[in-house]
Amino acid sequence: MKALRFENNKLNLAEINRPDSEDEALVRVLKSGICNTDLEIVKGYANFQGTIGHEFVGVVEEAKDAKHLVGKRVVGEINAGCGVCDSCRKEDSRHCPARTVLGIIGRDGAHAEFLSLPSRNLLEVPLEISDEQAVFTEPLAAAFGITEQVEILPETRVAIIGDGKLGNLCAQSVRLKSENVFLIGKHKEKLSLIEKRNIEGVLLEDAKKLSKNFDVIVEASGSESGFALALDLLKPRGKLVLKSTFQGAANWQAWRVVVDEITIVGSRCGRFAPALDLLKNKAVDVESLISREFSLSEGVKAMQTAGRKGVMKVILSIS
Amino acid sequence: MKALRFENNKLNLAEINRPDSEDEALVRVLKSGICNTDLEIVKGYANFQGTIGHEFVGVVEEAKDAKHLVGKRVVGEINAGCGVCDSCRKEDSRHCPARTVLGIIGRDGAHAEFLSLPSRNLLEVPLEISDEQAVFTEPLAAAFGITEQVEILPETRVAIIGDGKLGNLCAQSVRLKSENVFLIGKHKEKLSLIEKRNIEGVLLEDAKKLSKNFDVIVEASGSESGFALALDLLKPRGKLVLKSTFQGAANWQAWRVVVDEITIVGSRCGRFAPALDLLKNKAVDVESLISREFSLSEGVKAMQTAGRKGVMKVILSIS
Repeated sequence: MKALRFENNKLNLAEINRPDSEDEALVRVLKSGICNTDLEIVKGYANFQGTIGHEFVGVVEEAKDAKHLVGKRVVGEINAGCGVCDSCRKEDSRHCPARTVLGIIGRDGAHAEFLSLPSRNLLEVPLEISDEQAVFTEPLAAAFGITEQVEILPETRVAIIGDGKLGNLCAQSVRLKSENVFLIGKHKEKLSLIEKRNIEGVLLEDAKKLSKNFDVIVEASGSESGFALALDLLKPRGKLVLKSTFQGAANWQAWRVVVDEITIVGSRCGRFAPALDLLKNKAVDVESLISREFSLSEGVKAMQTAGRKGVMKVILSIS
Repeated sequence: MKALRFENNKLNLAEINRPDSEDEALVRVLKSGICNTDLEIVKGYANFQGTIGHEFVGVVEEAKDAKHLVGKRVVGEINAGCGVCDSCRKEDSRHCPARTVLGIIGRDGAHAEFLSLPSRNLLEVPLEISDEQAVFTEPLAAAFGITEQVEILPETRVAIIGDGKLGNLCAQSVRLKSENVFLIGKHKEKLSLIEKRNIEGVLLEDAKKLSKNFDVIVEASGSESGFALALDLLKPRGKLVLKSTFQGAANWQAWRVVVDEITIVGSRCGRFAPALDLLKNKAVDVESLISREFSLSEGVKAMQTAGRKGVMKVILSIS
């Protein structure tokens, strides 16, 4: 089968065998989405080697331990746990120390004709959700997960820093809880995209005027300057949700976190079930985030496109 | 009156006028305690100029708006708010943006014969508490404040990093809530001090074996390496309480906070009333932390002593 792989510091479209696991379900991938993490992996993040990609919708071809899933259209939780550790016993494989992660840690990913995952990771996709929409389940789960980690009430003032795909989904998710949501970014056209959803767009150069103005900040820009700005914008005792992984911030001012008694909350993956509900009920708009679709055989080009300025979600059509 | 002052980059004992505020209470200081923050101020922290010191016990000499306090032995909350902002209206002057802070921001401090504070900041000290013990009210309030910011249950595994005064008080405070408290430090004699309180002392070189072992870590060493160690020792979804102010950590690994979904909680001042209760009920031991007492006229020498290795609390006897 065809698979988009990162090996020996090179991204290429390869011909490899289908996954062949006795214990896992085999999924034929319909569509997959390119995430910033894919772009980071190609720069060396997580030292991953293999088939990249972790956002997908597919059809179950085989599932020995879950025959009712065969033929069903599914999405899949990307963390596969050991099944026996403390985390796994609490049904949270996201923090299993021995976990593999689809297309990120020790497990071939979704930019391929087929993938395998434990059948317990798979969730059936309701008919009301299109294939394109379903590809957003994983990032939407991650965005909506914020609202499970931090209390957000209608009056809570929230700013999201970063107007990319993740920032947009975070803003839409938080907007379902709060009536006071602001998205801070550099790109007028990306901000105008969000203003249709009753979220106020703020250009970065204007954001500095909003010092100590917010109860909650979501850092989704992945930049050191975004982190510093977040500390400026938070009220004392405010909460900073760190949503994107970046590699350190040389001047992080720990004393400010202590003096203003800030809480910083690291946030990675969310639960899929609430995200599917949101998509089914059209509570969020994901389609306007799609910039381009490519076939899997154009995978390398698709990745280059996804890395360009101004491009939001790039989708691979696979089968 | 005599006062220990930091001015023009010099610490010296000066003769100055008594505080003379119409709106505030005048307190004759009995004893004051030297805090690490005093040592930091003398190195330039907070750009403070004036009389240093913020841990004290004294007797109220004048209080126009609170005559019942005159003649009473008191301790005092160190943050003085504007009285009208959002924070102050919630009775939390600790985060008033226009606050002054005794001996730290815009207000002369406690290493002097007299100080002034708003009478609403003063709390009477119960007879059961000695002058020496009362001096610990402020740092104990800060330490015990942790238990109000982070849920600590009997089974919660907590490690405190730093075996100095603050780490010791944090460990004793947390021990009142959890049966699984560890204090990590470099000094065998300081660790043996804490083991009498049913807290396990762990030498720093042995701590690295405890990777991903704790639900809560309290960073009270004020060092960059303490912060890095804390990230190593926390379980996924664990909580890191930042208790001491330090000036940045060049290699802070933001991605680890996101991947392990760590929560970092900045923690500064606590409420005085619970701390007075703890002292009254002998729930914590503070006297064994006293290394030396000096008179105010030996203030400069007392500060030098407080800065030496192995020295815990240094107290000034004033009147």
